[in-house]
Amino acid sequence: MELWYTEYQTKNVGITCKVKQTYHTEKTQYQDIALIDTEQFGKMLVLDGTVQTTIEDEFVYHEMISHVPLATHKNPKKALVIGGGDGGAIREIIKHPTIEKAVLCEIDGRVIEIAKEYLPEISCALTDEKVEVIVDDGIKYVNQHKNEFDVIMIDSTDPVGPAVGLFSKEFYKAIYECLKEDGIFVAQTESPFFHKDLIRNAFKNVESIFPIARLYTCAIPTYPSGYWSFTMGSKKYDPLETDLDSIPKLDTKYYCPQIHKAVFALPKFVSDIIK
Amino acid sequence: MELWYTEYQTKNVGITCKVKQTYHTEKTQYQDIALIDTEQFGKMLVLDGTVQTTIEDEFVYHEMISHVPLATHKNPKKALVIGGGDGGAIREIIKHPTIEKAVLCEIDGRVIEIAKEYLPEISCALTDEKVEVIVDDGIKYVNQHKNEFDVIMIDSTDPVGPAVGLFSKEFYKAIYECLKEDGIFVAQTESPFFHKDLIRNAFKNVESIFPIARLYTCAIPTYPSGYWSFTMGSKKYDPLETDLDSIPKLDTKYYCPQIHKAVFALPKFVSDIIK
Repeated sequence: MELWYTEYQTKNVGITCKVKQTYHTEKTQYQDIALIDTEQFGKMLVLDGTVQTTIEDEFVYHEMISHVPLATHKNPKKALVIGGGDGGAIREIIKHPTIEKAVLCEIDGRVIEIAKEYLPEISCALTDEKVEVIVDDGIKYVNQHKNEFDVIMIDSTDPVGPAVGLFSKEFYKAIYECLKEDGIFVAQTESPFFHKDLIRNAFKNVESIFPIARLYTCAIPTYPSGYWSFTMGSKKYDPLETDLDSIPKLDTKYYCPQIHKAVFALPKFVSDIIK
Repeated sequence: MELWYTEYQTKNVGITCKVKQTYHTEKTQYQDIALIDTEQFGKMLVLDGTVQTTIEDEFVYHEMISHVPLATHKNPKKALVIGGGDGGAIREIIKHPTIEKAVLCEIDGRVIEIAKEYLPEISCALTDEKVEVIVDDGIKYVNQHKNEFDVIMIDSTDPVGPAVGLFSKEFYKAIYECLKEDGIFVAQTESPFFHKDLIRNAFKNVESIFPIARLYTCAIPTYPSGYWSFTMGSKKYDPLETDLDSIPKLDTKYYCPQIHKAVFALPKFVSDIIK
């Protein structure tokens, strides 16, 4: 018997993956969690029926949400990840040589525990001595910490369920306050093909709060349309002015200095979204 | 009753689309042709079970196979498309102001006829006075024409069935001979996630024949992994040295001067493929 897992990415299109094995399913206080093993992408974390990360292509998302802002900042010492309970962003952050502390604030502790049990390749850095793991509401955490972080990554699920508030203007304002005077934040902002309104709203909100707002993109096969966006708000540093020679050597598979500025060069239909 | 069309892009992953209507199915001398209407991507041309083009995302492929080489060439007058019977590349080519003649050489005349009947948005330029449509084997055509074209696009299906020969080193040599002394050619070379060997082989072959070989990528939701590559061979002009101010104004949705060089900035795992 062949088992296939299908995620309907919109009402009208889905991705379907041949399943080797189901390791775990669970309904937590916040969401449904599934951990399956697929033939094409290896182990896959699924939250509320939506693929979050897979062994084969997780490197793209985790490197791109982390290294673009970290390399833009001249001297990032303290970073915060909101969401991202799988630990992938944290793993990338602590590769950056100036980082002294990385805080993970994930609302659903079960995601962290399942990632630790089944996805050690991704969650491996969560026990690092530079890392603090907090199980709490990211909005509450951000509001309680002012002028504290150099870089903040909003590594959220889609804007339904527990992540809705992470896409609001009020939250972006709180992020601004939580950052130091030269801080930078990045949020994952979905697909330029399928979620134009979300990107437009997020970008306009960020632009109204931060002196520098930028959108960049990358290719992620297991995310809707395969094409993904990140919105950056920065108080001081512009990624388009990064001195590429100053970027530290990093052990990565997608991010590299050659693409640091190129990922901000947007196809016309994408730059039209945020005009 | 809901109808869904699933393309298994590899043995282990597929894209599934909700179908409004099937307009046409046919078995030609060369392949199975289907023309369906989908909710997400509109009308869709399927050859041998593989999505070739859809109304919603065709602009990416057709603009990127055409405008990158055309804008790299200083003065392209005569262009050839091998394959591409839907006419999308031809539609883009004749947007370029210096083009005097565009030849389409498609082996399967039924593809052209079905595109004319069901996809006028894409095939509209096939009746333009600058366009010559030839139903013949592209390999034969290229071997019979020497030193004739400024730009050649190999707009082929996957390297199975009628397109196998279009990925061979011998064919790339014939392309070299078919081009003028400052000619450029581009071939679609599949997904950097799923078809690494194909890209490596194509690039190495092109590199062994042309003084300048370059790989560039773009995002196409309905193609495997959503991420696609093109391999360029050029006798004289380097796309990385294009004067962006010299690029003509074009009515496009994906290609624009801002991305002309950025699309050659490859993620590390992609540049590793062709190292």
